[in-house]
Amino acid sequence: MLVAGILFPVLTSFDLDTLIADTESEILRVIDAAEDARTGELYGWVRYHMGLDGDAQRGKRLRPLLGLLAYQSIAGEHQRALPGAAAVEMGHNFSLVHDDIQDESSERRHRPALWTRIGVPQAINTGDALFTLSRMALHRLSDLGFPAQTVLDLMRLYDETCLALCEGQYLDIRNAGRAEWPSVDEYFDMIGRKTAALIAGSVQAGAMLATSDAAIVGAYRSFGWALGLAFQLNDDLLGIWGDEAETGKEASDIHERKKTLPLIHALEHATNVDRGRLQAILDTTPDTDRVEEAIAILERTGSREFTRERARFHRDEAIAQLEAAGVVDGEAMVRLQAIVASAIAA
Amino acid sequence: MLVAGILFPVLTSFDLDTLIADTESEILRVIDAAEDARTGELYGWVRYHMGLDGDAQRGKRLRPLLGLLAYQSIAGEHQRALPGAAAVEMGHNFSLVHDDIQDESSERRHRPALWTRIGVPQAINTGDALFTLSRMALHRLSDLGFPAQTVLDLMRLYDETCLALCEGQYLDIRNAGRAEWPSVDEYFDMIGRKTAALIAGSVQAGAMLATSDAAIVGAYRSFGWALGLAFQLNDDLLGIWGDEAETGKEASDIHERKKTLPLIHALEHATNVDRGRLQAILDTTPDTDRVEEAIAILERTGSREFTRERARFHRDEAIAQLEAAGVVDGEAMVRLQAIVASAIAA
Repeated sequence: MLVAGILFPVLTSFDLDTLIADTESEILRVIDAAEDARTGELYGWVRYHMGLDGDAQRGKRLRPLLGLLAYQSIAGEHQRALPGAAAVEMGHNFSLVHDDIQDESSERRHRPALWTRIGVPQAINTGDALFTLSRMALHRLSDLGFPAQTVLDLMRLYDETCLALCEGQYLDIRNAGRAEWPSVDEYFDMIGRKTAALIAGSVQAGAMLATSDAAIVGAYRSFGWALGLAFQLNDDLLGIWGDEAETGKEASDIHERKKTLPLIHALEHATNVDRGRLQAILDTTPDTDRVEEAIAILERTGSREFTRERARFHRDEAIAQLEAAGVVDGEAMVRLQAIVASAIAA
Repeated sequence: MLVAGILFPVLTSFDLDTLIADTESEILRVIDAAEDARTGELYGWVRYHMGLDGDAQRGKRLRPLLGLLAYQSIAGEHQRALPGAAAVEMGHNFSLVHDDIQDESSERRHRPALWTRIGVPQAINTGDALFTLSRMALHRLSDLGFPAQTVLDLMRLYDETCLALCEGQYLDIRNAGRAEWPSVDEYFDMIGRKTAALIAGSVQAGAMLATSDAAIVGAYRSFGWALGLAFQLNDDLLGIWGDEAETGKEASDIHERKKTLPLIHALEHATNVDRGRLQAILDTTPDTDRVEEAIAILERTGSREFTRERARFHRDEAIAQLEAAGVVDGEAMVRLQAIVASAIAA
């Protein structure tokens, strides 16, 4: 059951910085191996977007961290799972390159978004290259001695996950461009594909590399899925009630009329008068007074509390699944619990 | 050596229409399997772009045909290679979705290009979905009983091929946007990645599914690579000297100042006077008289003959590699030779 745990010594100490640094080295290894004398500029753009050009604020690297911790919680070490961690972070970043073009977002991690620097045509293509590189990363699992069937199972999981991601993105773009608002059900379907699938996939991949026990792998996947939903709902809360001093981001979701759960819930459950008023507010770009009015409607409809309850529900589900998974490595467990705890800040 | 040929009866008759119809069924199977109640619109766009919505002029399906014929020329049947054929055609079409956005081409196979119908954001994402689906197609090789290592080897080939494609696209976009013209060497490097790599990869994949003999697989790959270059150079010739009545396309490459081999060669090898004149013609959008003048310069510099010679050289190399490969199935050999012969029309 705990294959790698038997084969490799359990490390007595590690920290998240080590996991992040090792993941980034693995990513750079993949990029460097692909580059040749004529393609330095292209791979330079990939490094820039990934925040690996030495002059950047990096991402949180949440997805690879969760995958590595899942693996480590069973296997006791993290090195052999690095190709999976690199793949998932590169896949996540490929989607961000294309997202920024689709949303016309000009900034990413406090720097100009890639497309604003190199134009849309090259940025689309650089995203495609990064997507391809994410698959190349997985092939190193073969070099590390994982059986072909294991690598193939991971690739299938990765491909299915990427497809869910594209489906989620399709639904999100469609929702954003429509006058109608999605139902609560449609919203959960969309964030499942767009956010939870990749986090669940990353955690599941980590578990699959450490054990072939389907029940354990399933529990880890459910843990990741629940955690992904909890993270998204927490983001939704912060987008309306967050404190900029703490989050570093303005709580501007109502001003931007983002179709997140609190507003969707309120449009479904408010009184007729409140619903009409809220809809009128959202038919134009609301100023500060209107935003305040909308927030009051959300509060009295119970939409804030509903979102909080759902976030807590999925967080608790994540904790329960983690316990069901029967985690072995104590330090990894502590780290995973800390990440779960951070899921509900608001 | 001839694994599948032993396992499966040699078919006595087939035609290209059957191979195309079977490939399209295989592609539709992958698309249909992915679709659910909430994503019908997205997968409808995929079918539209692929020309599989029942109302379209389809592509030539050249890449899957070559892969299937390569497989059949060794194995005697084509059915088991269909997942590879589907993958390569879907991968080719993914790149066309993004190419059309990058080039702002509004038409594809006599219909509106996808992005003109659904907008750039959804079209970028639909391309990403199609790219992912192309990988899903390959997983059916496992269902057909191919060993995990074989499927994994094909995936690695596919990923390396897609990366070459992105690199070629990067070089092509860069060249198009620059005042400077590439050298003949740079041009061959670019078309190798952008055109030859996918044709070579498709043929190689067909061979890999039929035999594990590295020398045979290598000969098939070399065949595909040479054929890909010959096709591209033939396109370059038709883009300047082609007869619209025969090709269905206006020979407008000089008017559009496309950086293809005849012009690149002339700018490297013309006399000083001719080079200066040609450069001046290409510094503006040339009218019909200027195009005629440019063609005269190409002729007297020997650039048409140089391009023809190179096209013939690669065609002959393709034929030699096909012979070296020791093709077994006679009908498949005839089909492959016919495709090679079609490589040089001008």
